[in-house]
Amino acid sequence: MEAKEQGLLIVLSGPSGVGKGTVCAALRKRDVPFTYSISVTTRPPREGEVDGVNYFFKTKEEFENMIKRDEFLEWARYVNHYYGTPRRYVEEQLNAGRDVLLEIEVQGALQVKKKFPQGIFIFLVPPSLKELEQRIVSRGTESRDVIHNRMVVAREELEMMKHYDYVVVNDKVELACDRIEAIILAEHCKRERMMKHYITALKEAE
Amino acid sequence: MEAKEQGLLIVLSGPSGVGKGTVCAALRKRDVPFTYSISVTTRPPREGEVDGVNYFFKTKEEFENMIKRDEFLEWARYVNHYYGTPRRYVEEQLNAGRDVLLEIEVQGALQVKKKFPQGIFIFLVPPSLKELEQRIVSRGTESRDVIHNRMVVAREELEMMKHYDYVVVNDKVELACDRIEAIILAEHCKRERMMKHYITALKEAE
Repeated sequence: MEAKEQGLLIVLSGPSGVGKGTVCAALRKRDVPFTYSISVTTRPPREGEVDGVNYFFKTKEEFENMIKRDEFLEWARYVNHYYGTPRRYVEEQLNAGRDVLLEIEVQGALQVKKKFPQGIFIFLVPPSLKELEQRIVSRGTESRDVIHNRMVVAREELEMMKHYDYVVVNDKVELACDRIEAIILAEHCKRERMMKHYITALKEAE
Repeated sequence: MEAKEQGLLIVLSGPSGVGKGTVCAALRKRDVPFTYSISVTTRPPREGEVDGVNYFFKTKEEFENMIKRDEFLEWARYVNHYYGTPRRYVEEQLNAGRDVLLEIEVQGALQVKKKFPQGIFIFLVPPSLKELEQRIVSRGTESRDVIHNRMVVAREELEMMKHYDYVVVNDKVELACDRIEAIILAEHCKRERMMKHYITALKEAE
């Protein structure tokens, strides 16, 4: 019997417009061995979409029953349709030793954190925070209003950041991907994870 | 004023013979932007060795005074000479925003951890633990004695591992280097570190 290491649930989130989708698409191209989470939705399939590949398509009633049975890591209603992340699919992948990447809005990420605190929560930030800093450094070259407005936004982002394990600046998509890959590799090297693995192996040998 | 990020002290340790020196040499070749810690020693300089580059050379009396003044992150006596890691040099580098890599025996690493718990402690393990696991999986192909002896060693390594943040398997030097680089990059993305940085920047702007 092999002491199979559990996969990691990696939750990538951040303020809207930060470029989560673009970063995820770039990660996909790199052939990083993730599984991508598949959402459940009540919206009808579009042409070419396949059930169990693009989405799990469900009726409104089925979806609401899943909510009642607590089968979602998170769910939300946009316009007239439900969208959710099915806990079972994610857990099956993790148990098979696969890392699962979940790209999601901030509110959804907070829901996931409540139900799955052992996930790795990455907050993608726009370079604006870094830029803000540079503007502060070179004070006087910008109006006080511009700096003030940026500071308000920066404070909101800081507020959200609190709930995450890592903060990745999306200055360049490829650099952001490097950082995310590094985080995942480093997480697999965490002592607690490695020890658990070896202890299991040793016990099985006894 | 720029909110300069503090460097990280990265302590690479592991059982003797695991290949710490080889991994460090390979990291140096990669041009990773580390500073390497420079040790203080009482042994006389060898030909070509430069004070402040290879070592800080001190007399026995000077070294013992440094011990008294608690100026070492760790020190030890081998044969007739003292060797130690000067706290001041390391802190100067960290304050200048440089990461410092310290390659050191297990006993020294434990001393550093007491004096500098905010360091990143990486334990390099031989692939033997992984190999052990594979042997256990394919049980019957090896004698019970061989497995037993390896398990004793594995248990000792597990015992040491407890004090570290990360465990890196040195199966292939280049893979071990990839993991170490990933750990350092990921540590720079840690939320607490990033938030501290931004909070400082925001405060300076007020």
